[in-house]
This record gives sequence, structure tokens and C-alpha cells, in this order.
Amino acid sequence: MDKIYVISEHAETYHQLLEAAQLPDLAITSSAEKASIWLADPPLAAPLLPNAKALRWLQSTFAGTDALIQAPYRDYQLTNVRGIFGALMAEYVFGHILTETRHIGQYAKQQAQCHWQPQPYQSLRGKTLAILGTGAIGQHIATVAHAFGMTVVGVNQVGRPVEAFDQTMTLSELQQTLGKVDVLVSTLPATPETDKCLNTVFWQQAQNLLFINVGRGATVDEPALIHALDDEKLGLAVLDVMQQEPLPEQHPFWTHPNVKVTPHIAAVSFPEQVFALFADNYHRWHAGDPLMYQVDFDKGY
Amino acid sequence: MDKIYVISEHAETYHQLLEAAQLPDLAITSSAEKASIWLADPPLAAPLLPNAKALRWLQSTFAGTDALIQAPYRDYQLTNVRGIFGALMAEYVFGHILTETRHIGQYAKQQAQCHWQPQPYQSLRGKTLAILGTGAIGQHIATVAHAFGMTVVGVNQVGRPVEAFDQTMTLSELQQTLGKVDVLVSTLPATPETDKCLNTVFWQQAQNLLFINVGRGATVDEPALIHALDDEKLGLAVLDVMQQEPLPEQHPFWTHPNVKVTPHIAAVSFPEQVFALFADNYHRWHAGDPLMYQVDFDKGY
Repeated sequence: MDKIYVISEHAETYHQLLEAAQLPDLAITSSAEKASIWLADPPLAAPLLPNAKALRWLQSTFAGTDALIQAPYRDYQLTNVRGIFGALMAEYVFGHILTETRHIGQYAKQQAQCHWQPQPYQSLRGKTLAILGTGAIGQHIATVAHAFGMTVVGVNQVGRPVEAFDQTMTLSELQQTLGKVDVLVSTLPATPETDKCLNTVFWQQAQNLLFINVGRGATVDEPALIHALDDEKLGLAVLDVMQQEPLPEQHPFWTHPNVKVTPHIAAVSFPEQVFALFADNYHRWHAGDPLMYQVDFDKGY
Repeated sequence: MDKIYVISEHAETYHQLLEAAQLPDLAITSSAEKASIWLADPPLAAPLLPNAKALRWLQSTFAGTDALIQAPYRDYQLTNVRGIFGALMAEYVFGHILTETRHIGQYAKQQAQCHWQPQPYQSLRGKTLAILGTGAIGQHIATVAHAFGMTVVGVNQVGRPVEAFDQTMTLSELQQTLGKVDVLVSTLPATPETDKCLNTVFWQQAQNLLFINVGRGATVDEPALIHALDDEKLGLAVLDVMQQEPLPEQHPFWTHPNVKVTPHIAAVSFPEQVFALFADNYHRWHAGDPLMYQVDFDKGY
């Protein structure tokens, strides 16, 4: 018999789902100390890890597990959720790209003045989208980009080819050719390697680029980003993630004319989807099979 | 030797393109009377048709040729442009859908107040999109909708199956099941059959539907649309086309809280694309082969 401890913003829903699912040999406990399995939002779970005396497997309800990986306690299997965020991320990315390229905000302002005035625009067709990260989320965004007729460049650590992309390269190779990129989307996780990797040197070749960050705020050198915006290397930055969240009230991102801030909502964990994935994994656990979506503590993803 | 007369908002660009292309046995004329070929924006060409004494072929620069079809003079071949608008239409449609479903306008307002507040939302995945018109434009929109994981229903005159759609039906069949549709996009042309076909009876089953019109304004009974909005059968109407354009200043669409008005820009004719298509067609004309993209005056498309 395993005992499961749930710590999540959606704990109530998860408890209901657990009770309805009747998973074999699994009982809910309200004691973090006694639980062998945790179903947990990483930022809520991290401070409790010192009490995780019986923990053997933690199923994260998020894709991003950096809050847990930064903790010294690693004596358990960590799995995250994958495959369910790509669709939501692609919606966020193209919603924001098209709002910009098709002047949707401007037409709303014109309507408020009963003003009929077409604005010139260009199609996404033939434009180049670069995506940092060629995992499931990057691949999903690439697939939608192809439906819009864009050319898609993927970036990963060694430039390894990945089917969904027209071309793949390393971050330093992208840096050399950034002037040819129209839209840059980062899906990068927070790891020691990605820390502030989007810095002054990185933006040097950019020209009026649209940058969208749906990965992690720690990957961005924030003063360098503002400098690149003021220098017109970037035309617009759409940021769903920042170094500090919620974004502090005094932060210049709030008021910069070419920054759009959203409150970390590009992809949210719908409990029903996360639970379906957890239940699949639990059946593997129960059968003694390897778990899906294991996170490597050293790599950080 | 054929003589070509250009009448278009982009006439200067078309003249440059014609001169650069050096098409065989084709000379530019400034006389509408003497020209055997017209390259023309339909609303500008229509009033000149009584002078079209030598006209044998008119290549429209628009997809919509209703301005010409309504004229009594029909003694010429009419071709329009196809295949180049699908990508632009899909951008417009998904830009507006995602602006709505992902609260992009609301986050902009929150940012103006430095307010970090996630809003609940649902994915497009699994939602149902119905498209009126299963031609090239409807097919392109359907392809992008599939990339977003939507189910796509196509509507044409007899419900004839078309590959890009999960299902096809007639307009009256759709009317019966409109309660199951989340987003309705009309690409319908203005013809006697489509005139005000989106009327009070049509909206009866709708529930909080998002309606987007990128076809023709004549297909919509406008007072009935406002009534359906006020009745919450429609949640939002995004209208790029109206009965009268530019939309008159007193028209209730401008100020209705659940209507978004754009100035007929969902797809514009980029002269380079239109000209490439005209040049292809001219080579056919010159060789005596049948023209592409012929419009049937009786059907109206």
C-alpha cells in the first residue's frame, strides 16, 4: 500500500479525482512525512522537502520543476508533465504574434473612435520563427507555425536535428544569424546552462525582433533585454515569465511601451489532464515498470 | 497583340510589374475602350463596364467579384484570384479567436494597472469550428484549425465532402446543430442565394457563439445579428465586412460591446502575388488554353 500526499493549488480537485479513480493499493494521506508518493505543485512542495522522509516518487503537476531541482534533497524519483502544454503554448504564442502583426489592438482603438482605417501588414507566410528548445512544447509550436507557412528553426544544445523543424542549430549558431529571424520563442527551462543565456551578446545581431518568453524568466538578463528593446534590436517582448513572479510593482517591464506582460498563464495545468497522466504513471509504478516523464536532476529537465 | 488596361488602387505598381515582366504580345493602354484585357479592382472597374467595347477577359485583383457580377454587361471572361488569401484569412481568424479565448486585451488592461491576475481559460483543443464555404479559403482555415486540435465542420450547398474538413453539411443542417458549434467563420461570397442567409432563424440554436465574418456583409441580416448578440446566442461578432463599407458613423456595430469591427483587411491583395497569378493566366491566354480561376456569372463565384 502506497500513501499519496497532495500539495497543489488544485488539491481539492485532485482529492476528488483520486477518490473517483480508486487506484489500486493507494491511500490518500494528509501527512507529508508518511507519504511515499507526492502529487505536487513544485513551488509549494519545495519548502516541505525536508519533511519528505518516506518520499520515493514525486509527480510534478507542472512542466517546470526548477523549484524542486534547486533543493538539496534529491533522494526520490521526479516526474513532470509533458505533452499537454504544447497546444496551450502554441495558442499563447500565435495569439500574441497575430495580435501584433495584424494590429488587433490598434483596430480596437480605432473602433472606439468610429474610425475606418486599414493598416498595412505582412503575412506570417515566409517569415522565420526560431524556437529555443526542441522538446514537446517547441515541436508543437513548430507544427502550428508550419500551418501558417513559416520557416521554423529549432535550437538545442548540440544542434541535433528534430523532425518538426526545418533546421536546427545551437544557441551560439543562432546568435550569429539572429538578424534573419523575425520571431524568437523561448521554451527553455531554468538550468545552470540556461541562466541569463539571453544577454547583451546574444541580442547583438537582432533587428526589430519579436521575442516571446514562455520558458523561464531566469534565462533572460533583464536589464540587457530592456537595453535591446531601447536599441531597437527587439521590437517587442512578450513575457509570460520573469526573474521574479509576480512581477514587482516597480519593475520597468510593467510600463515599457514595447513589453507585454502576462501573469505566467501561457500554459496552465488543468487538473483533469494532469491527473490522467499521473494515473497512467501510477499504474506503471504499481506494476514496477519505469515511470514516464522522468526528470534528470543534473540536466534539470 | 493584346492591349491591357489597369484600373486599381495599386495601378502604379501593376504598371511597373507589367513593364518588368515583358509579357509577349501585350501592350499597356490607358484607354478602357481599346483594351481587350483588364487587370482591375472590381469596385473601380464596374462603373466603366459600359465603355468596355473591346473587353474579352477581365482579371480581377480581388477574390470577391460581386461588384462586377451585379452589372448587366457580361460579355467577357471573368477570372478572380484564389489560393493567395487563405493564409491571410487564417491569420485574421485565429488572431481574433485567440485574442478572445486567451484574454489578450484584458491582460493589456491589467498591465496598465501593474495588476498580476491570471484569468481562467480553455484550450481550443477539442472545440468545434464551423466554416461556411469549403473553397480554398475555408480549406486553409480548416488546416490551421486542425493544427490547433479543433474539430472542423464545413458547410457547402449540398454538404459535399471536402478533404480538409472532419464533416460537411448544408447550411440548414448546420442551423439544427448550431448549439454544438463554438466558433463560426463565414467565407461566403455575396450571391442571390447567400443574401441575408444569416438571419434570425439561422441563429436560433446558437449558444454564446463566436462569429467571424470574413466573407461578405450582404450575407448577414444585420438587425438580426444584433438581436442574437443581445440574446446571448452570440457571445461576440468579429466583422471584417458589412452591408455598407466603410461602416457608417451611426451604425450600431461601432459601439456594440460585443462587436469587433475591422476595415475589410482580413485579406488584402498584395500586387506582387496578384500579378504572378495574372502572368500565369496570361501565358495560358496567349497559348489559347483555358484560363484558371474562372468566375461563373450565374453562380456568382
